[in-house]
Amino acid sequence: MLCLFVVCLLFPINFYFYDVHWSQALFNEDLELEGFIEGGEALCSINRNTKYKNICCCFVLCRRPPKLREISWLLFVFFSSDIEISRAQSPKAVDVLAKEIGLLTDEIEIYGQTKAKVRLSLLERLKDQPDGKYVLVAGITPTPLGEGKSTVTIGLVQALTAHLNINSFACLRQPSQGPTFGVKGGAAGGGYAQVIPMEEFNLHLTGDIHAITAANNLLAAAIDARILHENTQSDKALYNRLVPVVNGVREFSAIQLARLRRLGINKTDPGTLTEEEISKFARLDIDPSTITWQRVVDTNDRFLRKITVGQANTEKGFVRQAQFDIAVASEIMAILALTTSLQDMKERLGKMVVANDKKGEPVTAEDLGVTGALAVLMKDAIKPTLMQTLEGTPVFVHAGPFANIAHGNSSVLADKIALKLVGEKGFVVTEAGFGADIGMEKFFNIKCRASGLVPSVVVLVATVRALKMHGGGPNVTAGAPLKKEYTEENLQLVADGCCNLQKQIQITQLFGVPVVVALNVFKTDSPAEVDLVCEIAKQSGAFDAVPCNHWSAGGRGAVKLAQAVEKAANQKNSFKYLYNLELPIVEKIRIIAQKVYGAQDIELSPAAQSQVDRYTRQGFGNLPICMAKTHLSLSHQPERKGVPTGFILPISDVRASIGAGFIYPLVGTMSTMPGLPTRPCFYDIDLDPVTEQVKGLF
Amino acid sequence: MLCLFVVCLLFPINFYFYDVHWSQALFNEDLELEGFIEGGEALCSINRNTKYKNICCCFVLCRRPPKLREISWLLFVFFSSDIEISRAQSPKAVDVLAKEIGLLTDEIEIYGQTKAKVRLSLLERLKDQPDGKYVLVAGITPTPLGEGKSTVTIGLVQALTAHLNINSFACLRQPSQGPTFGVKGGAAGGGYAQVIPMEEFNLHLTGDIHAITAANNLLAAAIDARILHENTQSDKALYNRLVPVVNGVREFSAIQLARLRRLGINKTDPGTLTEEEISKFARLDIDPSTITWQRVVDTNDRFLRKITVGQANTEKGFVRQAQFDIAVASEIMAILALTTSLQDMKERLGKMVVANDKKGEPVTAEDLGVTGALAVLMKDAIKPTLMQTLEGTPVFVHAGPFANIAHGNSSVLADKIALKLVGEKGFVVTEAGFGADIGMEKFFNIKCRASGLVPSVVVLVATVRALKMHGGGPNVTAGAPLKKEYTEENLQLVADGCCNLQKQIQITQLFGVPVVVALNVFKTDSPAEVDLVCEIAKQSGAFDAVPCNHWSAGGRGAVKLAQAVEKAANQKNSFKYLYNLELPIVEKIRIIAQKVYGAQDIELSPAAQSQVDRYTRQGFGNLPICMAKTHLSLSHQPERKGVPTGFILPISDVRASIGAGFIYPLVGTMSTMPGLPTRPCFYDIDLDPVTEQVKGLF
Repeated sequence: MLCLFVVCLLFPINFYFYDVHWSQALFNEDLELEGFIEGGEALCSINRNTKYKNICCCFVLCRRPPKLREISWLLFVFFSSDIEISRAQSPKAVDVLAKEIGLLTDEIEIYGQTKAKVRLSLLERLKDQPDGKYVLVAGITPTPLGEGKSTVTIGLVQALTAHLNINSFACLRQPSQGPTFGVKGGAAGGGYAQVIPMEEFNLHLTGDIHAITAANNLLAAAIDARILHENTQSDKALYNRLVPVVNGVREFSAIQLARLRRLGINKTDPGTLTEEEISKFARLDIDPSTITWQRVVDTNDRFLRKITVGQANTEKGFVRQAQFDIAVASEIMAILALTTSLQDMKERLGKMVVANDKKGEPVTAEDLGVTGALAVLMKDAIKPTLMQTLEGTPVFVHAGPFANIAHGNSSVLADKIALKLVGEKGFVVTEAGFGADIGMEKFFNIKCRASGLVPSVVVLVATVRALKMHGGGPNVTAGAPLKKEYTEENLQLVADGCCNLQKQIQITQLFGVPVVVALNVFKTDSPAEVDLVCEIAKQSGAFDAVPCNHWSAGGRGAVKLAQAVEKAANQKNSFKYLYNLELPIVEKIRIIAQKVYGAQDIELSPAAQSQVDRYTRQGFGNLPICMAKTHLSLSHQPERKGVPTGFILPISDVRASIGAGFIYPLVGTMSTMPGLPTRPCFYDIDLDPVTEQVKGLF
Repeated sequence: MLCLFVVCLLFPINFYFYDVHWSQALFNEDLELEGFIEGGEALCSINRNTKYKNICCCFVLCRRPPKLREISWLLFVFFSSDIEISRAQSPKAVDVLAKEIGLLTDEIEIYGQTKAKVRLSLLERLKDQPDGKYVLVAGITPTPLGEGKSTVTIGLVQALTAHLNINSFACLRQPSQGPTFGVKGGAAGGGYAQVIPMEEFNLHLTGDIHAITAANNLLAAAIDARILHENTQSDKALYNRLVPVVNGVREFSAIQLARLRRLGINKTDPGTLTEEEISKFARLDIDPSTITWQRVVDTNDRFLRKITVGQANTEKGFVRQAQFDIAVASEIMAILALTTSLQDMKERLGKMVVANDKKGEPVTAEDLGVTGALAVLMKDAIKPTLMQTLEGTPVFVHAGPFANIAHGNSSVLADKIALKLVGEKGFVVTEAGFGADIGMEKFFNIKCRASGLVPSVVVLVATVRALKMHGGGPNVTAGAPLKKEYTEENLQLVADGCCNLQKQIQITQLFGVPVVVALNVFKTDSPAEVDLVCEIAKQSGAFDAVPCNHWSAGGRGAVKLAQAVEKAANQKNSFKYLYNLELPIVEKIRIIAQKVYGAQDIELSPAAQSQVDRYTRQGFGNLPICMAKTHLSLSHQPERKGVPTGFILPISDVRASIGAGFIYPLVGTMSTMPGLPTRPCFYDIDLDPVTEQVKGLF
């Protein structure tokens, strides 16, 4: 091993590059070193541009095959960060990847060397192709550090395609730039299970979140400007400006004609409206206190959590209190994730309710005349972005709605396209935010309802660390060193904590889908701890339970998981939704609270009850429910770990995203704008102006 | 003509498509119909993908060659808007264009079919290539409707390359989305002198403005968050968080080491700082009342002109008044326009002053530790975007800083790259915002200083409409119909208004560059009016004066202008700056006011004088001056048309963009956030969900 180390120092650049492949190539399925790849042959057909030519010179000096732990140690002497691992691998050109997966030249729009948007026309071309298997990666109730669902998702597709030669696609959420520069860092996976280039993934990507921001804020500006103009003009002046004479002709625009029809005014000549009709048409009469539409930025800007707008003299005193949310919390993001076509997206954008008028009736984006402009701003964002994993397998990155006030899942369109592309025997692996009680429940009840797709398998990600926390271990805090309970073997804590795993397995079974537990192994986990978790998981009804080492070993470290998932996908599947949409809103909330969270009952505040009554009256009662609840406990109290019981779930408020198509009850207060800490990630982020390389992203 | 009309109805699709080319091909240089192109041969080598094959079937039915006005009328029966003209032309693939202009495959990054970013490495490859001729398009003092500088710029390159077979490049500013959805509409040119596809040009393009927004707002969030953290923590706690122990090791990051060096603390071990040094290092001690850094959105959102931030409980009462500007008013936009390399951009970003500390010393982005992150966010924005005109000639679109508080010119980098690409005999045509007194003055004194480039010719755009206004014609207002003075011949008004043209010619001559007047002809201009303007222009010292019909006739309508520009470029050129940078700030302002605007003198408010003193003391006294003045008059009073004299120019305040590298005196108040009117453009904008075509953009 010493010799190997010396070689690395002598040939650091070569070593950097080839090491990534070496780690993939050397392990057998038991993660012991098996041999070396000496030629230029890739592991599987999809990974064609992988190069190995200099690999031998590093290893001929080894006296014995190194063990996994030694290799990991060695690798991380050099690859100390995710971005260095990412950079050490040269991605294949995205047009090559597109060709490999069967896309036609005119079905992609290339963005630089490593990203491409895929056109929706593909769905029409492949409409008769049977779908592949549909796999959801969910997790147990996590620690604040996260348990590695994204790395499992990527490790699993790397294993399926680069090691088992089965077509697969990972469908991931696009991360917000806020956390990337704040505390959490990026979301491209990590270690040897990453999407590359990770800086492209984590930064602007193909501009979808920027498009959402632009659309969201245009609507916000339109609301306040309209209130101002209505407040400062007579009916007649307002009407004359809304329907002006242009080159001697006075006409309604298409969106104005649509509004007239909604108002029951069946006229098309602007000169023929009565005074009453003019007033009805020209005044939206928005009640400023009911505005629910907020402005957004894709930045962690805590000072925008509560603001007062309209204080310039030009706004004539119409000040009001408002807020900015982070862009991914926008309803438009939720729409992007749930829409099934351009036509559907446009309709959803128009239906978004932004406020009530003074009579209590909903005012929509369509009423403000802005639907077409929003659709124009979103016309490219609707196309999923194609990228690749570290092992060259295909990935779609598309949409990334918040997992509390929205449903926390990537897009329906990316999943649909990927299911066609992988073919009947292939696999599409997607991920749901937070624990299975939140992300997975919403995946089934909201996303699968929107798409009509039927999932084949759930992969439930667990870690020994999180299970120890549920078993009574000390607090786990981001930024603070882990207590010794988490770094030393402690079988009792693990055994006690498995109650949470068991409960999440049971939740999955409510939906009739087979579940495979993926134990994301850390270097501090003992073999006895790993065995114990897998045993309990299987006893609790999991189809299988498998330890995974994708973080340190790439796809090879997830081969057993892939095999288990493949078997589970062939099981009988009796997928069903948890509740009927026709039930009253309160009843649907109660079903989720009791059956999923284990609550004794729910309790609505008067405000929540009055909102429920309002939405029911407005005709929105039959939408699915999107619970906004902490992800750190099955209950509403983050400190209650394991499987809390006997609690009454308090519903403090109920809101609605009518365009996205769900009602969201708030369980406590939900922050929709993260903040920057004293020392944000950006202190370590830099750009080398000569090599143009990004440093310090993680 | 009737027959032709009938054919159009029978074959609307073919006619739509080929009509565009027909209008280009049919005119001789006097804009009379000359003949038809019957084969598949394009007009010039660069326009290779133009197709004419079906053209004859439309014309064999004509009994006589139609006259220009008849053709225009016919065309606009079908092409009633800029976007329809744009859409009727199929742009060539951008990789074909890139090849035609001599770019190597690895020097471009393709974004979709019609846009590509160009890598800066090109400058190194072509460093020994002599530059082409450098042409600036400026204008007389405009009406609020604009006089067509962008269409002249595009018409001129279309004439040069597609009609005279001379290499050329247009370098344009990227428009803000605010006006696109507000009142003004897009900025891709118009009629038959456009950049296509105009919806790509006017919408997200390649995301540069979005990147600027992200970078600007990250810095804004960092300022407020830092003030909060400093206000709520002891020196020690602050230091422990800023320089934490990670995996047992405590280290300064690179940007923190740089700050230590600036503070004169030559230590690298965090454990060795004295208490005083810790305090000095950890506290930026920002005086909130001096913050000049504002948040931005690329939306016309008037309610953000003055706001109060920090009102949530989590911000502990540290509220303050702030504002949002439109994104293009950001200093980062000005930096993008003036930078010459990645290294230079990073340095400028770090030098941006965001506030003063409580001792009155400047606090920079570098002090906040965010320089690297800003550079990372801007790493792709620094590359110019390649597009094409309606006639297939190349265009760079890059940067679009405000023309009042910033310098209103597109990027130095795009110009530099284009000057290499066109070769010694080629032409690069760029445009300066507003009238020549503002945009051109800043082009010479700020942009040319930053680039070191020497302009060859100024094209000064005038219209009969604007000249009539300067001659005493009634008010011209956006949205209102034009008075009859503007639609009927009135030689006296024209003659009287030419004083403004004369003055702007004299301003150009201050800089020693030959000037060609381009009279942008409207259909209501009489031949006598056109002749009169050209005659007066030549008498006033213009090298030449030429009527242009590019809007209705494309490049063919600007051939005479192109020939005049070519001749002028071979004139002796004695380019010089207007003032020496070493002069005191007040003296530089006075020179601009007197020599350019014709003011008697200037008068600084006490606030302005104290800012001048502060900047001089802080060492920023030798920067160039960027005047923020109305563009609607040579004076500070928009209603004073023609050539006002005898006025004292009031300087209400003086500010600085240290990263961009200029001092900007405010002449009156400058709005940095437009608003939405009662009926914004977006009422007409729509997306066809089936064809994916955008409607209603202009």
